[in-house]
Amino acid sequence: MGSIFAEIINGTIPCHKLYEDEQSLSFLDVRPIRPGHALVIPKQEIDYIFDVPDELLQTLITVAKKVARAIDQSVDCRRVGIIVAGLEVPHAHIHLVPIREIRDINFANATEMTNEKLARIAETIRALL
Amino acid sequence: MGSIFAEIINGTIPCHKLYEDEQSLSFLDVRPIRPGHALVIPKQEIDYIFDVPDELLQTLITVAKKVARAIDQSVDCRRVGIIVAGLEVPHAHIHLVPIREIRDINFANATEMTNEKLARIAETIRALL
Repeated sequence: MGSIFAEIINGTIPCHKLYEDEQSLSFLDVRPIRPGHALVIPKQEIDYIFDVPDELLQTLITVAKKVARAIDQSVDCRRVGIIVAGLEVPHAHIHLVPIREIRDINFANATEMTNEKLARIAETIRALL
Repeated sequence: MGSIFAEIINGTIPCHKLYEDEQSLSFLDVRPIRPGHALVIPKQEIDYIFDVPDELLQTLITVAKKVARAIDQSVDCRRVGIIVAGLEVPHAHIHLVPIREIRDINFANATEMTNEKLARIAETIRALL
Protein backbone atom coordinates (compact mmCIF):
# COMPACT_ATOMS: atom_id res chain seq x y z
CA MET A 1 0.00 0.00 0.00
CA GLY A 2 1.10 3.52 -0.75
CA SER A 3 4.15 3.12 -2.96
CA ILE A 4 4.92 5.99 -5.30
CA PHE A 5 3.24 4.02 -8.10
CA ALA A 6 -0.03 3.77 -6.14
CA GLU A 7 0.03 7.56 -5.90
CA ILE A 8 0.72 7.88 -9.62
CA ILE A 9 -2.17 5.52 -10.40
CA ASN A 10 -4.62 7.45 -8.22
CA GLY A 11 -3.37 10.78 -9.59
CA THR A 12 -1.93 12.19 -6.34
CA ILE A 13 1.46 12.35 -8.02
CA PRO A 14 1.46 13.51 -11.67
CA CYS A 15 3.23 11.56 -14.40
CA HIS A 16 4.10 11.89 -18.07
CA LYS A 17 1.49 9.38 -19.14
CA LEU A 18 1.91 7.40 -22.34
CA TYR A 19 -0.88 4.84 -22.16
CA GLU A 20 -3.62 3.74 -19.79
CA ASP A 21 -6.32 1.08 -19.75
CA GLU A 22 -8.35 -0.62 -17.03
CA GLN A 23 -5.53 -2.84 -15.87
CA SER A 24 -2.31 -1.03 -16.73
CA LEU A 25 -0.55 2.30 -16.92
CA SER A 26 2.56 3.42 -18.81
CA PHE A 27 4.50 6.63 -18.19
CA LEU A 28 8.02 8.03 -18.57
CA ASP A 29 10.67 7.28 -15.95
CA VAL A 30 11.75 10.64 -14.48
CA ARG A 31 15.30 9.31 -14.10
CA PRO A 32 15.81 7.82 -17.55
CA ILE A 33 18.78 5.66 -18.51
CA ARG A 34 18.22 7.12 -21.98
CA PRO A 35 15.58 9.56 -23.32
CA GLY A 36 12.30 7.72 -23.89
CA HIS A 37 12.83 5.29 -20.98
CA ALA A 38 9.31 4.33 -19.86
CA LEU A 39 7.61 2.11 -17.30
CA VAL A 40 4.62 -0.20 -17.66
CA ILE A 41 2.86 -1.15 -14.43
CA PRO A 42 -0.25 -3.08 -13.41
CA LYS A 43 -2.84 -0.99 -11.57
CA GLN A 44 -3.23 -3.84 -9.12
CA GLU A 45 -0.59 -3.51 -6.41
CA ILE A 46 1.60 -6.61 -6.70
CA ASP A 47 5.20 -6.41 -5.57
CA TYR A 48 6.96 -9.15 -7.55
CA ILE A 49 6.54 -9.42 -11.34
CA PHE A 50 6.41 -13.21 -11.15
CA ASP A 51 3.55 -13.05 -8.64
CA VAL A 52 1.43 -11.25 -11.26
CA PRO A 53 -1.33 -13.64 -12.46
CA ASP A 54 -0.68 -15.08 -15.94
CA GLU A 55 -3.46 -13.21 -17.70
CA LEU A 56 -2.46 -9.83 -16.27
CA LEU A 57 1.22 -10.52 -17.02
CA GLN A 58 0.24 -11.26 -20.63
CA THR A 59 -1.68 -7.97 -20.75
CA LEU A 60 1.35 -6.08 -19.42
CA ILE A 61 3.78 -7.53 -21.98
CA THR A 62 1.32 -6.71 -24.77
CA VAL A 63 1.03 -3.11 -23.52
CA ALA A 64 4.84 -3.01 -23.25
CA LYS A 65 5.10 -4.05 -26.90
CA LYS A 66 2.63 -1.39 -28.01
CA VAL A 67 4.46 1.35 -26.08
CA ALA A 68 7.92 0.09 -27.10
CA ARG A 69 7.04 0.26 -30.77
CA ALA A 70 6.01 3.90 -30.33
CA ILE A 71 9.23 4.65 -28.42
CA ASP A 72 11.23 2.99 -31.23
CA GLN A 73 9.86 5.53 -33.67
CA SER A 74 10.26 8.50 -31.32
CA VAL A 75 13.83 8.47 -30.07
CA ASP A 76 17.31 7.67 -31.31
CA CYS A 77 17.95 4.01 -30.48
CA ARG A 78 18.76 0.64 -32.06
CA ARG A 79 15.86 -1.00 -30.22
CA VAL A 80 13.93 -0.91 -26.98
CA GLY A 81 15.17 -3.24 -24.26
CA ILE A 82 13.37 -4.58 -21.21
CA ILE A 83 14.53 -4.58 -17.61
CA VAL A 84 12.60 -5.78 -14.59
CA ALA A 85 14.57 -5.60 -11.34
CA GLY A 86 11.96 -4.76 -8.77
CA LEU A 87 14.17 -4.27 -5.75
CA GLU A 88 13.37 -0.63 -5.08
CA VAL A 89 9.65 0.08 -5.46
CA PRO A 90 7.39 -2.73 -4.10
CA HIS A 91 5.05 -2.57 -7.11
CA ALA A 92 5.91 -4.61 -10.22
CA HIS A 93 7.16 -2.48 -13.12
CA ILE A 94 8.60 -3.18 -16.54
CA HIS A 95 11.32 -0.78 -17.71
CA LEU A 96 11.35 -0.10 -21.45
CA VAL A 97 14.78 1.31 -22.23
CA PRO A 98 15.79 2.61 -25.67
CA ILE A 99 19.27 1.18 -26.17
CA ARG A 100 22.09 1.72 -28.60
CA GLU A 101 24.57 -0.68 -27.02
CA ILE A 102 24.64 -3.38 -24.38
CA ARG A 103 26.13 -0.97 -21.82
CA ASP A 104 22.86 1.01 -21.87
CA ILE A 105 21.38 -1.81 -19.78
CA ASN A 106 22.67 -0.34 -16.53
CA PHE A 107 20.81 1.72 -13.94
CA ALA A 108 24.08 3.45 -13.06
CA ASN A 109 23.46 5.49 -16.24
CA ALA A 110 20.11 6.87 -15.01
CA THR A 111 19.97 10.65 -14.54
CA GLU A 112 17.29 13.23 -13.81
CA MET A 113 15.58 14.87 -16.78
CA THR A 114 13.76 18.22 -16.77
CA ASN A 115 9.98 18.24 -16.70
CA GLU A 116 9.90 20.16 -19.96
CA LYS A 117 12.02 17.62 -21.78
CA LEU A 118 10.00 14.72 -20.36
CA ALA A 119 6.77 16.42 -21.47
CA ARG A 120 8.08 16.86 -25.02
CA ILE A 121 9.18 13.22 -25.28
CA ALA A 122 5.87 11.96 -23.84
CA GLU A 123 3.93 14.00 -26.39
CA THR A 124 5.97 12.55 -29.27
CA ILE A 125 5.44 8.97 -28.07
CA ARG A 126 1.72 9.48 -27.32
CA ALA A 127 1.17 10.77 -30.86
CA LEU A 128 2.30 7.36 -32.15
CA LEU A 129 0.08 5.30 -29.85
CA MET B 1 18.94 -18.24 -40.14
CA GLY B 2 21.75 -19.99 -38.36
CA SER B 3 22.23 -18.04 -35.11
CA ILE B 4 23.59 -20.02 -32.18
CA PHE B 5 20.02 -20.29 -30.85
CA ALA B 6 18.81 -21.96 -34.05
CA GLU B 7 21.53 -24.57 -33.53
CA ILE B 8 20.51 -25.03 -29.90
CA ILE B 9 16.87 -25.48 -30.96
CA ASN B 10 17.72 -28.10 -33.58
CA GLY B 11 20.10 -29.86 -31.19
CA THR B 12 23.33 -29.27 -33.13
CA ILE B 13 24.69 -27.39 -30.12
CA PRO B 14 23.86 -28.90 -26.70
CA CYS B 15 22.34 -26.83 -23.90
CA HIS B 16 21.48 -27.19 -20.24
CA LYS B 17 17.76 -27.40 -20.94
CA LEU B 18 15.25 -26.31 -18.31
CA TYR B 19 11.96 -26.36 -20.21
CA GLU B 20 10.65 -26.98 -23.70
CA ASP B 21 7.28 -26.91 -25.44
CA GLU B 22 6.16 -26.58 -29.05
CA GLN B 23 6.80 -22.86 -29.23
CA SER B 24 9.53 -22.13 -26.71
CA LEU B 25 12.74 -23.34 -25.12
CA SER B 26 14.48 -22.38 -21.88
CA PHE B 27 18.08 -23.21 -20.95
CA LEU B 28 20.92 -21.88 -18.80
CA ASP B 29 23.11 -19.05 -20.07
CA VAL B 30 26.68 -20.42 -20.26
CA ARG B 31 28.01 -16.99 -19.25
CA PRO B 32 25.78 -16.24 -16.29
CA ILE B 33 25.62 -12.89 -14.53
CA ARG B 34 24.74 -14.96 -11.47
CA PRO B 35 24.26 -18.74 -10.99
CA GLY B 36 20.84 -19.76 -12.30
CA HIS B 37 20.81 -17.14 -15.08
CA ALA B 38 18.59 -18.62 -17.80
CA LEU B 39 17.21 -17.73 -21.22
CA VAL B 40 13.74 -18.18 -22.67
CA ILE B 41 13.50 -18.10 -26.47
CA PRO B 42 10.83 -18.66 -29.10
CA LYS B 43 11.54 -21.55 -31.47
CA GLN B 44 10.45 -19.31 -34.32
CA GLU B 45 13.43 -17.23 -35.46
CA ILE B 46 12.48 -13.61 -34.83
CA ASP B 47 15.22 -11.10 -34.17
CA TYR B 48 13.49 -8.34 -32.17
CA ILE B 49 11.40 -9.17 -29.10
CA PHE B 50 8.82 -6.51 -30.04
CA ASP B 51 8.36 -8.09 -33.48
CA VAL B 52 7.20 -11.31 -31.78
CA PRO B 53 3.43 -11.72 -32.41
CA ASP B 54 1.28 -10.92 -29.35
CA GLU B 55 0.15 -14.46 -28.69
CA LEU B 56 3.67 -15.92 -28.85
CA LEU B 57 5.01 -13.07 -26.71
CA GLN B 58 2.34 -13.90 -24.12
CA THR B 59 3.40 -17.55 -24.22
CA LEU B 60 7.04 -16.58 -23.69
CA ILE B 61 6.35 -14.39 -20.66
CA THR B 62 4.23 -17.17 -19.14
CA VAL B 63 7.05 -19.68 -19.68
CA ALA B 64 9.48 -17.11 -18.22
CA LYS B 65 7.29 -16.89 -15.10
CA LYS B 66 7.17 -20.66 -14.71
CA VAL B 67 10.95 -21.01 -15.07
CA ALA B 68 11.67 -17.94 -12.88
CA ARG B 69 9.65 -19.37 -10.02
CA ALA B 70 11.70 -22.56 -10.17
CA ILE B 71 14.95 -20.54 -10.28
CA ASP B 72 13.75 -18.54 -7.26
CA GLN B 73 13.58 -21.74 -5.23
CA SER B 74 16.88 -23.13 -6.55
CA VAL B 75 19.52 -20.45 -6.07
CA ASP B 76 20.46 -17.75 -3.60
CA CYS B 77 18.70 -14.54 -4.72
CA ARG B 78 16.20 -11.92 -3.63
CA ARG B 79 14.21 -12.38 -6.84
CA VAL B 80 14.56 -13.13 -10.51
CA GLY B 81 14.91 -10.11 -12.78
CA ILE B 82 14.30 -9.83 -16.51
CA ILE B 83 16.58 -8.36 -19.16
CA VAL B 84 15.98 -8.24 -22.88
CA ALA B 85 18.69 -6.41 -24.81
CA GLY B 86 18.88 -8.29 -28.07
CA LEU B 87 21.84 -6.56 -29.64
CA GLU B 88 24.15 -9.55 -29.90
CA VAL B 89 22.28 -12.64 -31.08
CA PRO B 90 19.64 -11.94 -33.80
CA HIS B 91 17.05 -14.21 -32.18
CA ALA B 92 14.78 -12.77 -29.45
CA HIS B 93 15.69 -14.00 -25.95
CA ILE B 94 14.54 -13.17 -22.46
CA HIS B 95 17.24 -13.26 -19.77
CA LEU B 96 16.07 -14.42 -16.35
CA VAL B 97 18.68 -13.22 -13.87
CA PRO B 98 18.63 -14.12 -10.18
CA ILE B 99 19.45 -10.84 -8.47
CA ARG B 100 20.41 -9.76 -4.98
CA GLU B 101 20.93 -6.09 -5.71
CA ILE B 102 20.28 -3.62 -8.51
CA ARG B 103 23.92 -3.82 -9.63
CA ASP B 104 23.36 -7.44 -10.66
CA ILE B 105 21.50 -6.05 -13.70
CA ASN B 106 24.69 -5.61 -15.69
CA PHE B 107 26.15 -7.84 -18.39
CA ALA B 108 29.65 -6.68 -17.38
CA ASN B 109 29.25 -9.15 -14.49
CA ALA B 110 28.76 -12.17 -16.78
CA THR B 111 31.45 -14.84 -16.53
CA GLU B 112 31.97 -18.36 -17.88
CA MET B 113 30.78 -21.26 -15.72
CA THR B 114 32.00 -24.86 -15.91
CA ASN B 115 29.84 -27.42 -17.63
CA GLU B 116 29.64 -29.47 -14.43
CA LYS B 117 28.34 -26.56 -12.39
CA LEU B 118 25.82 -25.61 -15.09
CA ALA B 119 24.60 -29.23 -15.22
CA ARG B 120 24.09 -29.32 -11.44
CA ILE B 121 22.15 -26.05 -11.42
CA ALA B 122 20.00 -27.12 -14.39
CA GLU B 123 19.13 -30.36 -12.62
CA THR B 124 18.05 -28.51 -9.48
CA ILE B 125 15.85 -26.11 -11.44
CA ARG B 126 14.31 -28.84 -13.64
CA ALA B 127 13.33 -30.80 -10.53
CA LEU B 128 11.10 -27.86 -9.56
CA LEU B 129 9.41 -27.48 -12.95
